[in-house]
Amino acid sequence: MSTALDRHACLALDRADALAPLREQFELPDGRIYLDGNSLGALPRSTADRVARAVREEWGHGLIESWNRAGWIALPQRVGDKIARLVGAAPGELVAADSTSVNLFKVLSAALALQAADAPQRRVIVSERSNFPTDLYIAETLAQERGLELRLVEPDEIALQLNGDLAVLMLTQVNYRSGQLHDMAALSAAAHAAGALTVWDLAHSAGALPVDLNGSDADFAVGCGYKYLNGGPGAPAFVWMHARHAARMDREGLRQPLSGWMGHAAPFEFTPGYRPAAGVQRYLCGTPAILALTALECGVDTLLAAEPLGGMATLRAKSVALCELFAALVESRCAGHGLTLASPRDATQRGSQVCFSHPEIGYAAVQALIARGVVGDFRAPDILRFGFTPLYTRFVDVWDAVEHLRQVLEAGEWRRPEFNRRNTVT
Amino acid sequence: MSTALDRHACLALDRADALAPLREQFELPDGRIYLDGNSLGALPRSTADRVARAVREEWGHGLIESWNRAGWIALPQRVGDKIARLVGAAPGELVAADSTSVNLFKVLSAALALQAADAPQRRVIVSERSNFPTDLYIAETLAQERGLELRLVEPDEIALQLNGDLAVLMLTQVNYRSGQLHDMAALSAAAHAAGALTVWDLAHSAGALPVDLNGSDADFAVGCGYKYLNGGPGAPAFVWMHARHAARMDREGLRQPLSGWMGHAAPFEFTPGYRPAAGVQRYLCGTPAILALTALECGVDTLLAAEPLGGMATLRAKSVALCELFAALVESRCAGHGLTLASPRDATQRGSQVCFSHPEIGYAAVQALIARGVVGDFRAPDILRFGFTPLYTRFVDVWDAVEHLRQVLEAGEWRRPEFNRRNTVT
Repeated sequence: MSTALDRHACLALDRADALAPLREQFELPDGRIYLDGNSLGALPRSTADRVARAVREEWGHGLIESWNRAGWIALPQRVGDKIARLVGAAPGELVAADSTSVNLFKVLSAALALQAADAPQRRVIVSERSNFPTDLYIAETLAQERGLELRLVEPDEIALQLNGDLAVLMLTQVNYRSGQLHDMAALSAAAHAAGALTVWDLAHSAGALPVDLNGSDADFAVGCGYKYLNGGPGAPAFVWMHARHAARMDREGLRQPLSGWMGHAAPFEFTPGYRPAAGVQRYLCGTPAILALTALECGVDTLLAAEPLGGMATLRAKSVALCELFAALVESRCAGHGLTLASPRDATQRGSQVCFSHPEIGYAAVQALIARGVVGDFRAPDILRFGFTPLYTRFVDVWDAVEHLRQVLEAGEWRRPEFNRRNTVT
Repeated sequence: MSTALDRHACLALDRADALAPLREQFELPDGRIYLDGNSLGALPRSTADRVARAVREEWGHGLIESWNRAGWIALPQRVGDKIARLVGAAPGELVAADSTSVNLFKVLSAALALQAADAPQRRVIVSERSNFPTDLYIAETLAQERGLELRLVEPDEIALQLNGDLAVLMLTQVNYRSGQLHDMAALSAAAHAAGALTVWDLAHSAGALPVDLNGSDADFAVGCGYKYLNGGPGAPAFVWMHARHAARMDREGLRQPLSGWMGHAAPFEFTPGYRPAAGVQRYLCGTPAILALTALECGVDTLLAAEPLGGMATLRAKSVALCELFAALVESRCAGHGLTLASPRDATQRGSQVCFSHPEIGYAAVQALIARGVVGDFRAPDILRFGFTPLYTRFVDVWDAVEHLRQVLEAGEWRRPEFNRRNTVT
């Protein structure tokens, strides 16, 4: 992407963009350039009315009967089947429920149980040192409980870990800080060749780029509903396992530890003994969060609306173009201010975000940008993170964001005291 | 309560009821008598607008900044502090999060870990055979994993189990089927005298009757947000532990197994090692479900609105009066049709529901009532269950419900084929 581009050229790119109309699906606040859809996706226009209908009609009027009449009871599967279309899973293989952390606990427990049965000498879980902390915390506790080792390594050290000690390779497909994209197919094949199982967190890849769980021969996966899936703050997450594990768990009657009633084979028989439901349904636990699932469905629908335009492959092409443009413009127009590209330079190894690091002013520069209406985020200790959601980000937004960043840096705006007070969440 | 009452007398009771204006807080559908608030609470009038504001303003306009500016990050604690006022807990002792099943897993795990450290010879979890199945399923799996025994007994056998084998006594304070109310203070004292810990599920008691967790010296508790708390279908649940356990877990750095990032001492430092947050905050796991918590807060507020009128004690008095009236009217006006009271006759031993059993026609009779606009529910194999929510149930509703039941039975309406086809959820 040429850095000789100017703002007019960016506007021309937007005019030529076949995906541009998809932006109309969103309520985006005036005067802001939102580059944080990788943290919290924007609000779909359909969500408010749809949730209001769920509240007033389904809950308020239908009351308890809506479990049947409004299809509430099947919502985890219905939304799951839609998400499945985005991540290369088959219908019935994926359900929406609980949080990413809780779902990770379920599948990592299941993967470890399978390995404990098949290869008890394998006592190591390997993950990336800079994996999202909640994944590491969940794995750390499970490892402690089971007397296993959680081994944290750098991405280039993963290959060394694929040996006879490895039980499970647990990775987030796109690193939340750097945006580095792991090769799911290659790592799954290598892990399998070494006798290990893979657990994938799709938090920064589902809805951001083409994911092919079955094509990659992954074993287990979880993902987040409130980032690229636009499901709303704290939206339900999702969980998937490969059909071979579903079949085996069915055959052997295996359970996951959060054996709640919605994962029972016959929840409304109210029998005292637990029998797991078939396949991925056993990963349901408590009563489904209907209002939250309703909002999540609206979010997922904004991505499915791209299917006639080429779906995730087309979205990915735009995402790559946006990211390339941003990286090139920052490096050319903000040169000399100490920013270093902290994401892979090769777009094929990067998710839908571009990060820069700065040894000192990262936090304050992000606050100064936010004050100007350019919303990215800061990830401790030194990362300025910018997410590019091809559903609603325009090329001109990229231009304008970089122009604001240039002005912040050149004017030393980040020095202002109000940009140097830490909030709870950034 | 005299069974010589007639409909006019019920109307007079409603006119004299100081709590009657609280009904105006709810959107109740015309033409229906809703006696299933113990399964799904009715919709508060404030909820739809409040949730719409959270969707359009906080999410849509505020986007990621709402984690700070709209107070999202503190919502589990804010809602938790409100629920605490209903169940005899102190501020900061209770958080709203996840589902009842998931929360039970957390606290039962914690209780078992404490006992494993203090008294490893105690290897039995005791619960009620007719406890709500999800509680039993969660306990069954934990017991299996830890090589413990889950022993299910009848209520009158509990006392026999309070011995040197008992690790944890896990009960639902009000039985979901029979409505039987356990004496939390007495059972907690007896369990402690025997060296055991108690885990209480408040699903059918929080918001239904005065609960005094601290006064009863309970150890751990969980509860449901979508029944008497009116939080909406699949609303977040809550979790509490006694301050002595919080202090010990703090002192010894103990974790619960679902060690997600929101239960970390410093979630936004993004450090790879887990350190539990203080007290009950360690029971948070994934990102809070903001829309669902927002709806739950509206529901809890409908109960707090009763505080100037005497709070849960006054609500309980009305609940008892409604239940007594219903039981008496069914037994007098529906006599000879094979219904047997399946709840304790003594109101002090009963929650806010009245159940009858019938050996054959329970399911169909409930369906016939629903067709007439009287919404109770059926619980397999033979229970007709009716919940009385003093916030919005009137005495005349009780009269009318019994009159419908009488007509269903006398006309044999339950024989109709359409009332004998089983739905997924009843």
